[in-house]
Amino acid sequence: MKLALPGGTQAFLAEYWQKKPCLIKGGIQNFADPLDANDLAGLAMEAEVESRLVVRMGENWDVQHGPFETFPSTDKDWTLLVQAVDHWFEQSQALMGLFDFMPRWRIDDLMVSFSVPGGGVGPHVDQYDVFIIQGEGKRRWRVGDKQPLKSKTPHPSLLQVEPFETALIDAEMAPGDILYIPPGFPHEGYAITPALNYSVGFRAPSGRDLLTHFADLAIDEERYNHRYSDPDLRPRDKTGEITLPELNRLKSNLTQIFDDEATLYRFFGLYLSEAKHELDLAPCEPAYHQEEVSQLLEAGVPLYRLAGARALYLAGVADTLFVDGEAFALPQGVAEALANSDAPDTALLAAQPQALEVLTRLINRGYFFFEEA
Amino acid sequence: MKLALPGGTQAFLAEYWQKKPCLIKGGIQNFADPLDANDLAGLAMEAEVESRLVVRMGENWDVQHGPFETFPSTDKDWTLLVQAVDHWFEQSQALMGLFDFMPRWRIDDLMVSFSVPGGGVGPHVDQYDVFIIQGEGKRRWRVGDKQPLKSKTPHPSLLQVEPFETALIDAEMAPGDILYIPPGFPHEGYAITPALNYSVGFRAPSGRDLLTHFADLAIDEERYNHRYSDPDLRPRDKTGEITLPELNRLKSNLTQIFDDEATLYRFFGLYLSEAKHELDLAPCEPAYHQEEVSQLLEAGVPLYRLAGARALYLAGVADTLFVDGEAFALPQGVAEALANSDAPDTALLAAQPQALEVLTRLINRGYFFFEEA
Ligand SMILES: O=C(O)CCC(=O)C(=O)O
Ligand SMILES: O=C(O)CCC(=O)C(=O)O
Ligand SMILES: [Co+2]
Ligand SMILES: [Co+2]
Repeated sequence: MKLALPGGTQAFLAEYWQKKPCLIKGGIQNFADPLDANDLAGLAMEAEVESRLVVRMGENWDVQHGPFETFPSTDKDWTLLVQAVDHWFEQSQALMGLFDFMPRWRIDDLMVSFSVPGGGVGPHVDQYDVFIIQGEGKRRWRVGDKQPLKSKTPHPSLLQVEPFETALIDAEMAPGDILYIPPGFPHEGYAITPALNYSVGFRAPSGRDLLTHFADLAIDEERYNHRYSDPDLRPRDKTGEITLPELNRLKSNLTQIFDDEATLYRFFGLYLSEAKHELDLAPCEPAYHQEEVSQLLEAGVPLYRLAGARALYLAGVADTLFVDGEAFALPQGVAEALANSDAPDTALLAAQPQALEVLTRLINRGYFFFEEA
Repeated sequence: MKLALPGGTQAFLAEYWQKKPCLIKGGIQNFADPLDANDLAGLAMEAEVESRLVVRMGENWDVQHGPFETFPSTDKDWTLLVQAVDHWFEQSQALMGLFDFMPRWRIDDLMVSFSVPGGGVGPHVDQYDVFIIQGEGKRRWRVGDKQPLKSKTPHPSLLQVEPFETALIDAEMAPGDILYIPPGFPHEGYAITPALNYSVGFRAPSGRDLLTHFADLAIDEERYNHRYSDPDLRPRDKTGEITLPELNRLKSNLTQIFDDEATLYRFFGLYLSEAKHELDLAPCEPAYHQEEVSQLLEAGVPLYRLAGARALYLAGVADTLFVDGEAFALPQGVAEALANSDAPDTALLAAQPQALEVLTRLINRGYFFFEEA
C-alpha cells in the first residue's frame, strides 16, 4: 500500500490541511483491507474495546454501546463503529504507517466502521480532522461547506446536525479512496453495499483541555504556591471594591505561572503522550533483567513500540521521553530513536548502556516489546 | 473600642504590612472582650462551627476536632481554637469593624482561641497576615525573623516548625494589645493566665488556587473551546517530536484564555466573594415579597449584611455584586452600597426600584436582613 496525495504530501497539506475537504480517488495504491467485518465484530465483543452500534429506523435513531454479544440480523440501516482499532488489531499498523509524515502527537486513533446498506451515523460535524478511507464495499459520502447548522440529538449519545443541502463533495467511494475532512465541515455517509470505512482521526487540544489538565498537574505536583501580596496596600473607604490594580495583580499572580515554560512544556509532553483510548498493555511476565535486554539488543532482535502507545519528546530537550503520560529520563538520541520510529534502531540502543535501566522498565511495562522468536 | 495603630493606619501599613511583625501595646483603646470562655466553648459544641482542641503533653501534642461535648478538666497546656467566630457570634462584629479600612476581599475570618496556662499551638509559620489581639488574660508571644526552619508534624493535623532561638518580638501581651505578623514569620504563644486571643486573619490566593478554581469555572461554563490548529503543517521525518513552534502554539492556545479579561475578572469576583468557612445562612421563611422590601426600605428599617458574607464588586463595573460565589446584576451604585457597608444606606436603596427584585432575592437567601422590630 502506498499513499498518493494530490501533488504529494507537502502540496496536499498546504492546500487542504485544516482548510478544505478533499476527495482523493485512489488515494491508497494497492489498497488491501487489514481486517474484515468478522474481525471487527470480534473486536466489538471485547470489553476493553470501545464500540457503538448505530441503527436508523426512518426518522429515529438508536445507539447501543459494546461489548456486543450479537449483531442485528437485518441487512439494512445499521453501522458498527469500533474505536482505537490500531491499539487492538496488529494488522492495522500498515494503514496507520501511511500517515507517518504527520506529527505523532496530532494523531489520535484509527476508528473502523462496518455498515450495511443505508447504514451511517447521520449528518454531523467533528471537531477534529479526519482521513476516511474506503475499504471493502461502496459508500456514498457527502461533505458540506462550513455553515451554521442546528444541532440535533436524535438519541442521547448521537450528536447530529440538521441536514445540509449543498454538498462540496458528493461521491460514491470505492476501496482505496480517501476523503479528507477538516474540523467543522458537516458530513454524512451511507453504505451502498456492505462497507468498511477506516477513519484516521486527529487530536487537537482545546484551550479548556489544556487549562484543566494543567491545573491537575499543578495540584498533583503542589506547584505555584506564590501568594498574592500587596506590601503597598493603603487604607481605603470602599472596602467592598476589588480595585483595578488589585485585579491586575491577581491576573499576573495567575498568568506568571506560564512564565515557567519548563513545567508548561513538560506538561505538554505528559498530556499529549497520554492515549485517549485504552492500550493493549500487558506487563512482561517474568520481567526482563537489564542484561537480557542488553543481549537481545546486541543480537539485533527487532524491538517495537506497542501499537497506539504514544512516545514523544520535546524539541531541544530530547533527553526526556514522554510515554503515555509519564516522563522517562533517557540519554539524548535514545528518546528520539524510541519516539521517531515504531521499530527503533536496536544497534543505536545497544550502544547506549546508560539507557538500559529505563529501557528495561519501558519494556517490562509493555510499551516496547521484542519480536518473539 | 478604637484601633490605634502606630502613626495611624496609613503609616502602619506602609511600614509593617507584609513587611515585618509589630507589637502594638494598647492597639485597641477601651478594649472589651466580645465573648468569654463559656461563649467560645458553646460555639465549639456546635456542629456547623469549625473548632480544634490542641493539647501539649511534654514533647507530644494531641489535636481533636469539634464539635465537642466536654473540655479538658486539667488547667494546664491546652488551647481551644474556633474558626470564623465572626460568622456565628454577632457581638464579634465590633472587633471586625475596627479593620474596615482593609479591602474586604483580603480579610478571611476571626479565629478565637481560649488557652489555659501553658496552652498554645506551638511554633509555626502561617501563609497569611494576621492581627492577633489579646483579650482577657495574659499570654507570652514570641515572633522570629523569616528563616528556613524545618517542618514538624507532631500530630497529623498540627503543622509546626522547629523551635526558633532569636526573637524579634518576645512579649507578655495584655488585653487590647495587638500583634501583627506578616506571612512567613515563625511565632508561638503560650498562655500565662487563662487567655483569650482574637486572630483577624487574611486570605491571599496562591497562583495554584487561582488556576485550579478558574479551571473549574471553565469546565462549569464550557468555555475556551478554541482548538489547536496548524493549517501551515508540513510533512516531517521526526514524527515523535513536539517542535518548538508547536510548543509555542500550544502555549498561546492556553494563555490566550487570559486575554478574555472580562471572564477572568468576573472569576476573581466570584471566587474571592466565596466564604472559606460556613456561613450562618438562614433563608427567610416566609419569603419577603418585593413590595414588603420596598416598604421596609422606605420606612428606614435598618438593613444589615449577614456577618461573614462577602459582597464585592469590581472597579469600573459596579453593576454586578458578587456575593458568596454568585454574581447578581444590580444598578450601578446599589452594588457599591451593599458591598461597602455592613449596614447599607436604605434611603439609597429605596430610591432604586430597579434593584428591588435582586435585593429581595438576596434578602430571602439570607445574605442581607432587616433589623427585627
Ligand atoms: O464511518 C463512519 O460511519 C463515520 C466516519 C466519520 O464520520 C468520521 O470518521 O468522522
Ligand atoms: O491563638 C492561637 O493560639 C494561635 C494564633 C495564631 O498563631 C494565629 O492566629 O496565627
Ligand atoms: Co465524522
Ligand atoms: Co499563627
